[in-house]
Amino acid sequence: HTSRDPAISEPLAAALDRVRRAPDADALLASHRTAWGQLWRRAELEVPDEAGRILRLHLFHVLQTLSPHTAELDVGVPARGLHGEAYRGHVFWDELFVLPYLNLHFPEVSRALLTYRHRRLERARTAARDAGCTGAMYPWQSGSDGREETQRLHLNPRSGRWLPDHSHLQHHVGSAIAYNVWQYCQATGDSEFLHTKGAETMLQIARFWAGRATFDPDLGRYRVRGVMGPDEYHDAYPDAVRPGLDDNAYTNVTAAWVLARTLELLRELPEPRRLELVERTELGQGELELWEDVSRRLHIPFHQGVISQFEGFGDLAELDWEGLRRRHGDIRRLDRVLEADGDTPNRYQASKQADVLMLGYLFPPAELKALFARLGHTLDDAGWERTVDYYLRRTSHGSTLSGLVHGWVLARVRRAEAWQFCQEALEGDIADLQGGTTGEGIHLGAMAGTLDLVQRGLTGLEIRDGALRLAPVPLPELSAYDFTLRYRGHWGVRVRMTPGGLHVAVPPDGGREPIDVELPDGRTVAVEPGTSCDLPLPGP
Amino acid sequence: HTSRDPAISEPLAAALDRVRRAPDADALLASHRTAWGQLWRRAELEVPDEAGRILRLHLFHVLQTLSPHTAELDVGVPARGLHGEAYRGHVFWDELFVLPYLNLHFPEVSRALLTYRHRRLERARTAARDAGCTGAMYPWQSGSDGREETQRLHLNPRSGRWLPDHSHLQHHVGSAIAYNVWQYCQATGDSEFLHTKGAETMLQIARFWAGRATFDPDLGRYRVRGVMGPDEYHDAYPDAVRPGLDDNAYTNVTAAWVLARTLELLRELPEPRRLELVERTELGQGELELWEDVSRRLHIPFHQGVISQFEGFGDLAELDWEGLRRRHGDIRRLDRVLEADGDTPNRYQASKQADVLMLGYLFPPAELKALFARLGHTLDDAGWERTVDYYLRRTSHGSTLSGLVHGWVLARVRRAEAWQFCQEALEGDIADLQGGTTGEGIHLGAMAGTLDLVQRGLTGLEIRDGALRLAPVPLPELSAYDFTLRYRGHWGVRVRMTPGGLHVAVPPDGGREPIDVELPDGRTVAVEPGTSCDLPLPGP
Repeated sequence: HTSRDPAISEPLAAALDRVRRAPDADALLASHRTAWGQLWRRAELEVPDEAGRILRLHLFHVLQTLSPHTAELDVGVPARGLHGEAYRGHVFWDELFVLPYLNLHFPEVSRALLTYRHRRLERARTAARDAGCTGAMYPWQSGSDGREETQRLHLNPRSGRWLPDHSHLQHHVGSAIAYNVWQYCQATGDSEFLHTKGAETMLQIARFWAGRATFDPDLGRYRVRGVMGPDEYHDAYPDAVRPGLDDNAYTNVTAAWVLARTLELLRELPEPRRLELVERTELGQGELELWEDVSRRLHIPFHQGVISQFEGFGDLAELDWEGLRRRHGDIRRLDRVLEADGDTPNRYQASKQADVLMLGYLFPPAELKALFARLGHTLDDAGWERTVDYYLRRTSHGSTLSGLVHGWVLARVRRAEAWQFCQEALEGDIADLQGGTTGEGIHLGAMAGTLDLVQRGLTGLEIRDGALRLAPVPLPELSAYDFTLRYRGHWGVRVRMTPGGLHVAVPPDGGREPIDVELPDGRTVAVEPGTSCDLPLPGP
Repeated sequence: HTSRDPAISEPLAAALDRVRRAPDADALLASHRTAWGQLWRRAELEVPDEAGRILRLHLFHVLQTLSPHTAELDVGVPARGLHGEAYRGHVFWDELFVLPYLNLHFPEVSRALLTYRHRRLERARTAARDAGCTGAMYPWQSGSDGREETQRLHLNPRSGRWLPDHSHLQHHVGSAIAYNVWQYCQATGDSEFLHTKGAETMLQIARFWAGRATFDPDLGRYRVRGVMGPDEYHDAYPDAVRPGLDDNAYTNVTAAWVLARTLELLRELPEPRRLELVERTELGQGELELWEDVSRRLHIPFHQGVISQFEGFGDLAELDWEGLRRRHGDIRRLDRVLEADGDTPNRYQASKQADVLMLGYLFPPAELKALFARLGHTLDDAGWERTVDYYLRRTSHGSTLSGLVHGWVLARVRRAEAWQFCQEALEGDIADLQGGTTGEGIHLGAMAGTLDLVQRGLTGLEIRDGALRLAPVPLPELSAYDFTLRYRGHWGVRVRMTPGGLHVAVPPDGGREPIDVELPDGRTVAVEPGTSCDLPLPGP
């Protein structure tokens, strides 16, 4: 017990009382087993062989860190779980890889994690104001009161030098929060949250982006300058005096998404609630028009027919990957290798991790196309495949999140190559692929991400307008598995995937609505509670 | 700031930071006004004349005590609001008069108040165990950790004597909590809460009643012995050694309701969730059968064709009300008057406040009839009217809640006499009708109850299976008023009552479902968002 606990008088008295009243060890063990058994059931996931065993380890860490117990606390998603001290317990963007999984098993935990962010909205608004911005600027690293805690220096153990660290420029963390609000509400139908705290959070993040964008009359486009994307190896242009890059594609596309979704949400709000929000935030009609304009005209850079990671990425030098590998062996931490040589990744077309390709993780293909179309660009399958190929050859995978995202994206674009990345994602911690970092704590985002890779990545599961859409991409190496979901009031919905088809079963539940299942070929089935359906799929 | 605040690091640092960053007084005043303006809008209630002015005062105290701010705290409903120190801030059953009002304006506050009770469920289970009972025994008075804090002695200032206080025997407080869980979920459609914390709470309260009831083979009925009902003037049979009374009708009927609703809820739970609950609570089939049996065979005593307040109430002596009034003037606090004379209310058919009649406050006429029918009794209109008359003549109104309940009940049974009690409820605090108690703090339950008297009492508003049922009983003294509601995702639903009819308007809200309005004569209308409807009513 601590003095922060609810429902106690004094922590010492509460602790003594609890110990005094505790039943004997056998009874405690039995209730412990029941509680864990129930957690496992809510997150049931049957995947065969080695992958299945690893996924259960990942599930264990997720459940241990973020259970219905934590939903009662004011806590965020710690990057290393409750397992190690790296990152000093700070909260990053990792929840982007965690909440989509939790939404479909422990929605109360997702809601609590989003509420944690909402409680720090005022602090994020203060940070924006201090930086001369509007809206809410969520910190890249934070804890306790939600202030920016990102280090300003970091050590390269290879060179022994302390170097400036500009990663606080990763303002895209705000879009991750907005994305999670939307995803949570789609998965649960929780319009109470969406219309209150959710809308307040999204509105201030949208406002930040609209204010942060500047109009470039030459381009006829809005630009977001001086930021960093997910790829932390690039923090400035070569020889630039100031840190930051312009028009990171991931940042701009997700910012456009936040603006478009927030406008849509504002239109859908019950009128009296919209009035409250507008009044509290002094949101004017002119501002909404600006949002609409920015959401359609943010600059998305391209070069050689592929999306540029940022403006000018294509002008950087090509890295001699093979030469470096020969000289240094493992070059995942390319930043340290180059800096020790007196060089910098800023000069090269070389990324730490998925950056542009994160777009394929966040958005199903049709949604991504629509987003680009709204921005005035045609992103056809060929263009996306070229982009995937381009970055595949220019990424060092210096983050455990990178294999995950590549596996997810390649399962749709280049199925034969996907498994190697999925496997890398699976082995990130058990094989300590980042070379010594697991000892400082497991990587919770990557762990939850692998669970979601099976749950949403390979099934193409998407919830839209109250329907469960499935667009499976069975990998030869992982084509038969099953799991259960909690979905809009239904518990224990069972999804079984086999090479030949899909099986969906809904347990009896006192006359709730059926679940609408939609497949990409247009088949739709309403599965009544207490029944199941089989949907044959074409062979891979 | 305190160390219990979320989203801070240290209270002192947080306080200094907040003060340092605060805008100037004009800006603070403006945002304060906006915030209050929005609270008033969410609780809009237009009632003409003096009654309207008093209701706004009541609304002020409710909003000040229980606003969206308090929804973020671990707090219950303090009996005297945030206004006075009487009852030492303890939490009683008053939320029974507060939540039904809040449900339709600030559901997030209701949910938080129910969560406050759920956090103390373990403590209530401990209390039951310590008393040799099963399930959860919620305390009559509590604070902080949820332990029983009811005084064991109280002072009669008239006699100067300290007397034993048995009011902790008011176990009916648990049924009030279960009732509020159900009402909240009906009003909001929040099945997530109902199926998790709500179901856990209801289950343990139902279990308490089934365990507390003992089978009487002579009667062929279950009995609940040794308790107190809402009427605190009766705490024992005359000359009995032990405190408590048998088969308090209010306690038994509400216990039967809790058992029946919990059984219904268990049947409707999604199967995997029911399995979890059954497993955690070791709920057996035999126990469910017992609940079913107890819910149908709890003993409800009658005498002279009226419901007895408890077994043997009809055998008590009749009080000489007129003689006492002549001698003592105000005899609301009959307990003190009699004790000072060496007598006790336990000898008389004389109640402090509505006790049996509380049933007419909690249950609409049709539901009350059905409850009695389930218990094997016919409660026709004449029988209920006899019961109302009987207790009307035997109640001293020593609680501010009494006028409220009588006004509510009489509006349906004896319209001409209702207003005098409504007025008493309205004037409880502004005229300090209990003689000096308002100075120690306003009576929040009675204040919120008067708001709900207009909102649900006089309109007959009831939410069942997702429909808004209205069965207005316009009083000649209060027949034209209007108010807004928040209802299942709709905000600002406007209800206007006039002597000739009813007007319901639903604001535009982005394509939500229409609201189904039902009248007792069978008329049903689906009111689409952005439209309104007029429903003529027969004259009074």
